[in-house]
Amino acid sequence: MLMNTVNLIKKKREGKALSVEEISFLVDAYTKKQIPDYQFSAFLMAGFLNGLNKKETSALTEAMLFSGIIIDLSDIPGKKVDKHSTGGVGDKTSLIIAPIVAAAGVNVPMISGRGLGHSGGTLDKLESIPGFKTNLSLAQYKKVLKKCQAVLIGQTKDVAPADKLIYALRDVTATVESIPYITGSIMSKKLAEGIDGLVLDVKTGSGAFMKQTKDAKALTQSLMDTAKSFNKEVIAFITDMNQPLGTHIGNWLEVYESVKILQGEMIEDLYEVSIQLSGAMIYLGKKAKSIKEGIKISQELIQNGKAFEKFIEMVELQNGNTFYIHNLDKYPKTKHREVITASKSGFMKMHDNTLIGMASLELGAGRKTIKDIIDPAAGIIFHPKIGTKIKKGDVIAELFTNNKPAIETAKSMISDSYEISKKKVLPVKLIKTIIK
Amino acid sequence: MLMNTVNLIKKKREGKALSVEEISFLVDAYTKKQIPDYQFSAFLMAGFLNGLNKKETSALTEAMLFSGIIIDLSDIPGKKVDKHSTGGVGDKTSLIIAPIVAAAGVNVPMISGRGLGHSGGTLDKLESIPGFKTNLSLAQYKKVLKKCQAVLIGQTKDVAPADKLIYALRDVTATVESIPYITGSIMSKKLAEGIDGLVLDVKTGSGAFMKQTKDAKALTQSLMDTAKSFNKEVIAFITDMNQPLGTHIGNWLEVYESVKILQGEMIEDLYEVSIQLSGAMIYLGKKAKSIKEGIKISQELIQNGKAFEKFIEMVELQNGNTFYIHNLDKYPKTKHREVITASKSGFMKMHDNTLIGMASLELGAGRKTIKDIIDPAAGIIFHPKIGTKIKKGDVIAELFTNNKPAIETAKSMISDSYEISKKKVLPVKLIKTIIK
Repeated sequence: MLMNTVNLIKKKREGKALSVEEISFLVDAYTKKQIPDYQFSAFLMAGFLNGLNKKETSALTEAMLFSGIIIDLSDIPGKKVDKHSTGGVGDKTSLIIAPIVAAAGVNVPMISGRGLGHSGGTLDKLESIPGFKTNLSLAQYKKVLKKCQAVLIGQTKDVAPADKLIYALRDVTATVESIPYITGSIMSKKLAEGIDGLVLDVKTGSGAFMKQTKDAKALTQSLMDTAKSFNKEVIAFITDMNQPLGTHIGNWLEVYESVKILQGEMIEDLYEVSIQLSGAMIYLGKKAKSIKEGIKISQELIQNGKAFEKFIEMVELQNGNTFYIHNLDKYPKTKHREVITASKSGFMKMHDNTLIGMASLELGAGRKTIKDIIDPAAGIIFHPKIGTKIKKGDVIAELFTNNKPAIETAKSMISDSYEISKKKVLPVKLIKTIIK
Repeated sequence: MLMNTVNLIKKKREGKALSVEEISFLVDAYTKKQIPDYQFSAFLMAGFLNGLNKKETSALTEAMLFSGIIIDLSDIPGKKVDKHSTGGVGDKTSLIIAPIVAAAGVNVPMISGRGLGHSGGTLDKLESIPGFKTNLSLAQYKKVLKKCQAVLIGQTKDVAPADKLIYALRDVTATVESIPYITGSIMSKKLAEGIDGLVLDVKTGSGAFMKQTKDAKALTQSLMDTAKSFNKEVIAFITDMNQPLGTHIGNWLEVYESVKILQGEMIEDLYEVSIQLSGAMIYLGKKAKSIKEGIKISQELIQNGKAFEKFIEMVELQNGNTFYIHNLDKYPKTKHREVITASKSGFMKMHDNTLIGMASLELGAGRKTIKDIIDPAAGIIFHPKIGTKIKKGDVIAELFTNNKPAIETAKSMISDSYEISKKKVLPVKLIKTIIK
């Protein structure tokens, strides 16, 4: 079938729905460089403003998915279940969940991303463990998964190459914040993993990409509709991101906190989100009859040390040195540690969680440009949760960095992120909704 | 001021108005190739869908205007007035008006275009006169204007280069049919001519770019608002394009008909539109106290032969050979002439005037691709006007071509363009509105 790109752009511009074949033609031709950037960006803007319906979103996802390989995990017995989080500040649940769920007997083939803006990336966190390899070949990836039922790697060029191209174009043409496009980008990569089920953790609040709960709900619905159109089982959580998840922000700091959780230390919000998500994954992996039972199994696997053992096994199989994991406090310290204390008494009120993520990036925990090198030990420990009663002089935050000039900027960002309120502040609800 | 292109695209995407400086930055940077095509096309689509307000449209026009030179005609005494038509089938008024208005003592510095789709171009028509040069240098252009007060050339690369670049991008990104962009494209070129006043002929109907009168009105308003924001005097006509203007379509055929008008032959609709537009131009040129007086002057200049003399003078000054103008019937004939006659009696009813323009293009009068060479003698004479009583066997149309295989296609297009109705058909109103 001969298709005319200008006519397809025009059709979307006029608010009409494109057919599966038409969307497939656009994505295929763009990926093969048969359609120039300027036409695809005009299409992206028309779709951004006029929207894509369920069917179009599913077609976009499918076209992006089939631009690359779909990993065949059929020779690995048992269910394969992954989790995707839309990201936020201090969100390190992947590191905790993967070993728990694998320890429960469910395969967790996880392909993760790098840090993006104020939000940290699972790969950067794992690479703070000396020797840890995230760029495994597909053969190695399957080998690790077969051996320990959990593997955590970065996106390979064979998986959804259309996503890489389209994302780069969206980034420079102000077409990022579109639910259909975000859906296509997330789901094309997740579906390429060859999974049976998916648990979604859609973050909402000042530190999330979706600031408003209604937008988070719309994205969740779109992700679920698309997953279901590919016959995948899916459970979605909408969870709070108005404050950091846990207390540690920064790569090694987050590995540290994850290990603490896996060793049975109950950091309240992080523990809660982790066992809920694990519970749902274990349920989708058919190793529990309900999410509730899955949660119970998760708690047991932490208590009996099996989850931590699985973490050690996974790190070793991915070439990581476990010395610092066994000796957390021996990890090389940053040159500078700065403490922020409360200037008055009152209740913790948070204005903008994103600023805490940005401050951590400033201290060296993230990249401002693609060339920046991450400082694995840099970051922030932010202690009080929203609503906590604070006394003057209490430690609010600890800053870690090897880059002294960054301290002042980071301090000022952090002080803009919260206030100590005289009036009582209510704690936030951690898990907003669970959608099956 | 440092501006971020992505943020400006986003602002327009969000439906906000851009400032004069912001629009100027985008157009300047794009023209200088500092902004890539893919970003400008995303901006174009956002502006297409969210619109540009009056101030933004004027800023766009100004930025496009100042991408090139503004021709300085201050050393030529008297007012400078031009006409712009949005184009259609058989619209050859420029050829008639320029000599009339010049003969009345008003300068007519006309920069015209090539044929576009079904619509003929003034330059292509003039070039059917052997030797006629439309690519004069600016110095030659001013010399001709000084000598005979009328000059007709093509767009030079010095005039509004941004328009050429932006138009080419709009053409391939489905962002052509936008009133603000059409306004910017037309007005940037017209303002660059160094004119004092402008008469607009906005066509509406099946053979026009604006099929609906409401769209023609909106475009007219936008063009007038923009002209006025540059302190130019402007009068607009909205005229009918549901059938060819006059009877001749095709390059030499239109020169032929124009000469006939200038020689005093009254082809009803073409004569009427021509004297109305000339009248308004003479009025804007301060050589008449009203449009009505301007029309009277135009009629006199045709009757006393001065308009035709001026035409001859202009053709000679632009290197044209006037032999065929003085000996119209000696112009080389096409190899083939095909006559379409009425298959039954009734009244002329027209469905789609565009098809007549397309049929003429098919016969060789226009370009399907940029490389096609125009056959100056090819075209159509379409005789009956809408509402005319027709007897079986009457000549409806004569087709002229050197390309025999095109005849069947052209005939079928023409037969789809009209029907002979048993019921009485009312004639159409030629001049819909005059807006001052």
